[in-house]
Amino acid sequence: MDTNGRSRHFIYTDWILIETQFDPKQLHSKETVFTIGNGYLGTRGSFEEGYTNALPATFIHGVYDDVPVVYTELANCPDWLPLVVIVNGERFRLDQGEILRYDRQLDLRQGILSRSLRWRSPSGKTIDIHFERFASLADQHILGQRCQLTPVDFDGLIEVQASINGYPENQGFNHWEGLDQGKTDQGFWLYRRTRNSRIEIGMAAKTTISGTEAALQFNSAPGYPTTSANFFAVSQQTVTIEKIVTVFTSREIDTPVATAQEKLAHLPDYTTLLDAHKQVWDKVWQQSDIIIEGDSTAAFAVRYNLFQLLIAAPRQDDISIPAKTLSGFGYRGHVFWDTEIFILPFFTYVQPAIARNLLSYRYHTLNGARRKAFHDGYKGAMFAWESAVTGDEVTPRWSLPNDFYADDVRIWCRDREIHISADIAYAVWYYWQATDDDEWMRDCGAEIILDTAVFWESRVEFNRESQQYEIRGVIGADEYHEFVHNNTFTNRMVQWHLEKAIAVYNWLEKNFPERAIELEQKLQLSPEQRTHWQEIAAKLLIFYDSSTGLIEQFEGFFQLEDINLADYEPRDRSMQAILGIEGANKRQVLKQPDVLMLLYLMRQSEDFPYNQKALQANWDYYAPRTDITYGSSLGPAIHAILASDLSKSAEAYERFMQAVMVDLEDTRGNTADGIHGASAGGIWQAVILGFGGIQLTEDGPIANPHLPPGWTRLKFKLQWRGKWHEFDLHQEQVAQEITHQLEFLQLSFSPNPQSQSPELGSPVVLTPHDAGSSVSYPNSPKYQMETSPHSSDIQGFIFDLDGVLTDTAEFHYLAWQRLADQEGIPFNRQANEALRGISRRASLMLIVGDRPYSEAQLEEMMERKNGYYVDLIQNMTSRDLSLGAIELLNELRQAGIKIAIGSASKNARTVVERLGIADKIDAIADGYSVQKPKPAPDLFLYAANLLKLKPEQCVVVEDATAGVEAALAAGMWTVGLGPAERVGAAHVVLPNLAGVKWTDLKAKLNSITTQKK
Amino acid sequence: MDTNGRSRHFIYTDWILIETQFDPKQLHSKETVFTIGNGYLGTRGSFEEGYTNALPATFIHGVYDDVPVVYTELANCPDWLPLVVIVNGERFRLDQGEILRYDRQLDLRQGILSRSLRWRSPSGKTIDIHFERFASLADQHILGQRCQLTPVDFDGLIEVQASINGYPENQGFNHWEGLDQGKTDQGFWLYRRTRNSRIEIGMAAKTTISGTEAALQFNSAPGYPTTSANFFAVSQQTVTIEKIVTVFTSREIDTPVATAQEKLAHLPDYTTLLDAHKQVWDKVWQQSDIIIEGDSTAAFAVRYNLFQLLIAAPRQDDISIPAKTLSGFGYRGHVFWDTEIFILPFFTYVQPAIARNLLSYRYHTLNGARRKAFHDGYKGAMFAWESAVTGDEVTPRWSLPNDFYADDVRIWCRDREIHISADIAYAVWYYWQATDDDEWMRDCGAEIILDTAVFWESRVEFNRESQQYEIRGVIGADEYHEFVHNNTFTNRMVQWHLEKAIAVYNWLEKNFPERAIELEQKLQLSPEQRTHWQEIAAKLLIFYDSSTGLIEQFEGFFQLEDINLADYEPRDRSMQAILGIEGANKRQVLKQPDVLMLLYLMRQSEDFPYNQKALQANWDYYAPRTDITYGSSLGPAIHAILASDLSKSAEAYERFMQAVMVDLEDTRGNTADGIHGASAGGIWQAVILGFGGIQLTEDGPIANPHLPPGWTRLKFKLQWRGKWHEFDLHQEQVAQEITHQLEFLQLSFSPNPQSQSPELGSPVVLTPHDAGSSVSYPNSPKYQMETSPHSSDIQGFIFDLDGVLTDTAEFHYLAWQRLADQEGIPFNRQANEALRGISRRASLMLIVGDRPYSEAQLEEMMERKNGYYVDLIQNMTSRDLSLGAIELLNELRQAGIKIAIGSASKNARTVVERLGIADKIDAIADGYSVQKPKPAPDLFLYAANLLKLKPEQCVVVEDATAGVEAALAAGMWTVGLGPAERVGAAHVVLPNLAGVKWTDLKAKLNSITTQKK
Repeated sequence: MDTNGRSRHFIYTDWILIETQFDPKQLHSKETVFTIGNGYLGTRGSFEEGYTNALPATFIHGVYDDVPVVYTELANCPDWLPLVVIVNGERFRLDQGEILRYDRQLDLRQGILSRSLRWRSPSGKTIDIHFERFASLADQHILGQRCQLTPVDFDGLIEVQASINGYPENQGFNHWEGLDQGKTDQGFWLYRRTRNSRIEIGMAAKTTISGTEAALQFNSAPGYPTTSANFFAVSQQTVTIEKIVTVFTSREIDTPVATAQEKLAHLPDYTTLLDAHKQVWDKVWQQSDIIIEGDSTAAFAVRYNLFQLLIAAPRQDDISIPAKTLSGFGYRGHVFWDTEIFILPFFTYVQPAIARNLLSYRYHTLNGARRKAFHDGYKGAMFAWESAVTGDEVTPRWSLPNDFYADDVRIWCRDREIHISADIAYAVWYYWQATDDDEWMRDCGAEIILDTAVFWESRVEFNRESQQYEIRGVIGADEYHEFVHNNTFTNRMVQWHLEKAIAVYNWLEKNFPERAIELEQKLQLSPEQRTHWQEIAAKLLIFYDSSTGLIEQFEGFFQLEDINLADYEPRDRSMQAILGIEGANKRQVLKQPDVLMLLYLMRQSEDFPYNQKALQANWDYYAPRTDITYGSSLGPAIHAILASDLSKSAEAYERFMQAVMVDLEDTRGNTADGIHGASAGGIWQAVILGFGGIQLTEDGPIANPHLPPGWTRLKFKLQWRGKWHEFDLHQEQVAQEITHQLEFLQLSFSPNPQSQSPELGSPVVLTPHDAGSSVSYPNSPKYQMETSPHSSDIQGFIFDLDGVLTDTAEFHYLAWQRLADQEGIPFNRQANEALRGISRRASLMLIVGDRPYSEAQLEEMMERKNGYYVDLIQNMTSRDLSLGAIELLNELRQAGIKIAIGSASKNARTVVERLGIADKIDAIADGYSVQKPKPAPDLFLYAANLLKLKPEQCVVVEDATAGVEAALAAGMWTVGLGPAERVGAAHVVLPNLAGVKWTDLKAKLNSITTQKK
Repeated sequence: MDTNGRSRHFIYTDWILIETQFDPKQLHSKETVFTIGNGYLGTRGSFEEGYTNALPATFIHGVYDDVPVVYTELANCPDWLPLVVIVNGERFRLDQGEILRYDRQLDLRQGILSRSLRWRSPSGKTIDIHFERFASLADQHILGQRCQLTPVDFDGLIEVQASINGYPENQGFNHWEGLDQGKTDQGFWLYRRTRNSRIEIGMAAKTTISGTEAALQFNSAPGYPTTSANFFAVSQQTVTIEKIVTVFTSREIDTPVATAQEKLAHLPDYTTLLDAHKQVWDKVWQQSDIIIEGDSTAAFAVRYNLFQLLIAAPRQDDISIPAKTLSGFGYRGHVFWDTEIFILPFFTYVQPAIARNLLSYRYHTLNGARRKAFHDGYKGAMFAWESAVTGDEVTPRWSLPNDFYADDVRIWCRDREIHISADIAYAVWYYWQATDDDEWMRDCGAEIILDTAVFWESRVEFNRESQQYEIRGVIGADEYHEFVHNNTFTNRMVQWHLEKAIAVYNWLEKNFPERAIELEQKLQLSPEQRTHWQEIAAKLLIFYDSSTGLIEQFEGFFQLEDINLADYEPRDRSMQAILGIEGANKRQVLKQPDVLMLLYLMRQSEDFPYNQKALQANWDYYAPRTDITYGSSLGPAIHAILASDLSKSAEAYERFMQAVMVDLEDTRGNTADGIHGASAGGIWQAVILGFGGIQLTEDGPIANPHLPPGWTRLKFKLQWRGKWHEFDLHQEQVAQEITHQLEFLQLSFSPNPQSQSPELGSPVVLTPHDAGSSVSYPNSPKYQMETSPHSSDIQGFIFDLDGVLTDTAEFHYLAWQRLADQEGIPFNRQANEALRGISRRASLMLIVGDRPYSEAQLEEMMERKNGYYVDLIQNMTSRDLSLGAIELLNELRQAGIKIAIGSASKNARTVVERLGIADKIDAIADGYSVQKPKPAPDLFLYAANLLKLKPEQCVVVEDATAGVEAALAAGMWTVGLGPAERVGAAHVVLPNLAGVKWTDLKAKLNSITTQKK
């Protein structure tokens, strides 16, 4: 449950991603991470209030416009998010005033992004602000936004401005020109058009306000229509502003503005729209979810990746998923092989209608592929390496630095990375295999496979000397080598492609002879062509050493200078960045799997050259030479699967986590550019086809699982040939053998195919799996207990209050700060850190230092501070409970665990009352209970006594160093909340209580017990 | 006075450019033409109300920001113009409702752009709108804008929204990110920053309203702050809105926003600011003006070009004039040789302080030039072909088409067009010669000349075989040839440069030995270097055939395929566009003068290879091979000068007019991109150095004029070595000899050097000039008079009223339209054209056609229509007089000419009264005067009779076909206003009365008399 690295403010619960603190340095990557969408559009998780360097974006599928150098890009659409809150003349913004509470949540299950804040304005007005937004999955043209405002400590004027920003930017470029805008009874509408592609967009918005009396006003600044509301807000009374936006473009309708207005006029209220949205999500998850138990981070992260795919996949069939989905500016919204090879399987097996859409995009863009072939001097259809709405090639020719004298870098992918045409044929074939969608194959798929085969026929060269066909001058899957001959990946995929083209041709001729004739005429095919294809396939040069199974990546690869990647560690950039383009070209270093990628693709049907020997030999050769950390993000998931096949559990899990956390933890440092869509797709394949070991057989899917260590359960569904198959893979028992750093798990599985609906296929019998596997154990405890209690004895919990169950630490700080200011004593947030968990007097002594105050003065000051504090906490409610606290308290009570408060505060009772948890607390030890403050164990011993428990039966939850020391001194189990620097001495360290479960915690404490033994 | 070509709605008066009708197709070019500025910024003449496809822009000198491909560009700054007028809920815009009157004026003398409109809203509210704006020349940080609104026929609500648009665009790109914005008592402020160069801009605006009661409101849409005023407007009462804007950037001050606010807070009122502005312009024109008589188009157009230079020239010394000034997006605000070679002389001789600024820019950017030399492998300073604020090379490497498959075009100028370093040295030298500014030469100029000489030393190559120095692989002045060796222009300029470098070195050593030593150290010069430079200069390869004077443009030019440009006529694009880049490279076709450019530059001091023989020989060879129409706009002015030298008056004038009208008439079709700055500079040289024949001698400037035919006077001032010299060149007498199409003029000149101030130099004696010259005669009359009156006999004018002195034709149309609508008869503006000049009854008969109305019904309808009309004209005032009418009436009265009205209208007296011209009219012949309507001559004969004049003593001014016919039938002189299709039968055809002068008209009528003889 610990987070690490770049996203230490993240908590992963089952379904909710929680950000507990905002780091401005991560603004752009977090905007990506908190993207929402609905398959029609995606909206980055930018803040409603707007920041100078923010990169808000809403991308709508297919809304491309011209741009220099890269030809076309997804146009950032008018921004529906701006919602400015002005409190007594002070505009709410995170970089001014004080953030007393912050919590942003992305609820994957419901597709809702929300943010709760308590903000104190620079002039001292405190307000609770809750934002919420969703892009309706029930109706893709509806967007909803809500803002709830509750003054905490003041009555005063508030102004809210809800706008649409018609000046959205693609790196400064605004693709939209204004056509018109206007006002309606409840809001406004905006009508704009892209400059070159001339796609029109119509948006209409209405704003409602409840909880106060406020007249809405309309401001018509050109391109920035705004509805504003001014009202007098009253302390503790919540005012709710709801903005509903409809959006259409001329891609789907001739009259986008009129349609947007009309739809808006007939919509039900926000809550009804939100409910409909949630219901559809519920349905989608019923099919798409993957349940993982025993590894909560992976469990959440897998869902997160699926969520990003589900919101990115178009529900129409003339467009596909951009490499960075609809979540960022990277790769300009261009579509790559990422979709077909990495993303498609998830949809093919889980949402086949969407898979069909994605492949139909390739059908609709065949003419673009034909133009590319024609311009390059070939026949048939040659798919673009990067494509947009027409299918024409839009890979930039140049990377142009803005240095006055630097050289421009030629990008060769448009010219040479031709394997994509075979990749698409591969995807078409396996979609067909999985779905039996003969109709689509006849109407669309066959034409794709055949016309790309025609292209290959014109692209291969016959070498008279060797009497072999060759494909020269290409870039293979590995992009570090930019001009190679007979790349095995490419050649074998082409060979496979031609074989399948013949099969499809035969199938068509037999089953749909009219369509066969139609295509023969359209594509200028002749029945004899199959013979030629057969000949090419038979004579295509493939480097495969049958004695060793080793495959040479391309002609001469083994003659290149070899390299030991370990020599370059540690590093934080790609090998190409280190060696230079030419340097990488000349060496045996791979950006991503190439031979191994081929083996992975041939693994599905165990086609040549896939076999166990080849897999082992090529893994051993290529894996160490692959830049898996900073090369392509396409690599890790594939390596995870192959490593799993080879029973390299530790490496499989490492690669898997590398892939699954790539955006959540921004491990490559480029999440700001958008979600790694291919990696997300690879995750599904790694879990289902890798760890789940699903094989798609003629008799249906069967599982041959290799669950990673720690995973106790893996449950998912998939469709095969029109039927659902559900898998529930368990580890029957966990026997643990601990060595110094490694934990070996003996796994066995209980097959659990279920048949929940009439559509489900026949039960599948799983073979037991007995391979041992290893995994590095990430969280070895830092503290050795003096005694050896066993966690199964735990019967009580003692919670510190401040910083644990609530944020009163913040109120204390504010009260101390006010006192210090009055006394002219320097004091700040940093100084306040030293006060955590110590008594009021000790705190005061630290603050006054060696200033000569009399005892009477000190007493008065303590009184004064306490007065401020008591004032402050009067306003506390159950909303001030820490995230996850109430859930944990409830779980503990259900489990029969007793609960005490162990707080140095003299106001503990008041706080407990205010928080509304008095009925869940069995005992309170507070500032009046004992003499010796923490780190003395007295307070906790006092609490344990109240609970009638022994120390070793108690768990203390603390956020302060002194508190942790006190608990340990008391001989109790200790959970520290916060950074290791502060609470690292505890048995278990967690960031806070959000998502914390007693069952997990128990397991964790248990493992410490076990280890100790 | 006729206009032609693409700008037929333009009238050129002495100082005012008048646009009488707006053509949306010319939106962008007119935005350029109506640019205003003040040397700090330039603002394109975009409309206040805003249009989707408008290209508003305000450029501030030096405010560059990064942009792909072209490295950097002048950032379009926040737009201070938006001023939206909403009349009873209907937003004023030219493309909706009806434009009843339109008139846009650029007043060069005062630097004011204004626009007067009468607009009828779609719902029928008529309002007079007058806009005015200026960029203060008295204080460059002040911008003023005024809008006056006068309801004509309604009382109602009006809203005015005055904004600053913080989303300005460079072709869609917005360089600005918002930092902050806020409200003040009277308006608002805006604080933004460029994205990459991080230049901050602060703007503050205040809006005042007078003539009504209105509270101003502030709307704070992010980036689009707006002050809006809602008021109840009353018919015939004018409301005035004034917006004053202050602007600063971090280039000149650390606190641009605070400074903008502070300045704004202490400003006087609009009128006071405007007066100060006018006074400075008056002073500037006293020095800069050129007076041309006898050719009003040229007279205005020359002033227009000087105006554009004066507003574009920086008053600071770290930046220079972009090729398209500050008026458009073309060439991205980059600085070329255009400044030094084409623009600089005007400033050197008229505003030398500005010339010094321009050259100091090159001094301040020497380090950029040194970086370029270093990166290219040379020594010293190599000036960039295109530069911006640092002086580094910013010429794009590529022209990247957005066609998916088109090839990128490599632009070679950055690599090869190296002559600019010598051009700059040339400019420095002649600035020094003209000003004797030894101080600047010592501190700045010398370093420029010497370090560029160091560059040449490293750039030349010694050919051991020929024992000559060569300069290989360049582009010369002519850019159609992209890779040539030993371009004579370049080589001779380098030779000249090295010679002058030696001279400067010697001068420095002698006069400022310390500075000489300082530069020797800084530039790593040694005194012996001069010997090397001398040797290079002596041995530099120059292709000059001393027997013929013919110069080969570069090595092998004469071997290229020859071309006859006439074979390609008519054409509307460049020869490079026709032949392709390679096609032009291979042929003897020039984009612009190259050898001739060299001769022009050497003409000033009659340096080698300039001599009369070389001039003649090379003109004869190169002029016919130069793409002077669609090649470079730098060519025509230079050709005009050389043609004038060669006494080719017709061609000189043609080239001159081509240059001087390039933007006013958009003759190259690219005025939308910005003013042709180099052409404007060339105009001054063509007038002063060409037609004026000014030679700068040791004894001061002397004139050897070749005035174009028709020019009766050329008057101007220039400074030479600290003293002003004024020239007033006249043609003493004009003898005319008419042949079929040509008019030969014998010219002679009266020298008229004047000495108006103590600074003026000694009088100059001019030598008489006796060369004949020819010019095509543009306006041969289309009508042969039956009688042959002589225009000197003219003693009376008879004016039609409707469409001539006023726009009552519009009121008639509206009245008829209303009647027709009531009767259900189809009628529209086009049908109304047929009613011009015919009687009320005849009009009605045309309208009703063959519909069976009784006479009583017809009578009633005429009454009804007249009732509407009389209602409408009740609101007329003197402001309804046509432009130029009052001036012409006054001039006629001063000249003792009698004036009558000859109108078919029965309301003529009312109209004359309302127009306030009753005291200028001697007689009125109206709808009651005669029975037979026009085209019968009766009405005019009746009028002449009232005036007691014979027909041949009268001039009729008419706008209708029937009226012209009536006048001709009456045997009177006839002036037709309007298109030739309508009034082409008249003796003289004019667009309208704006700028029409009796003296001009008399001359025109006189010439017809003469011709007739």
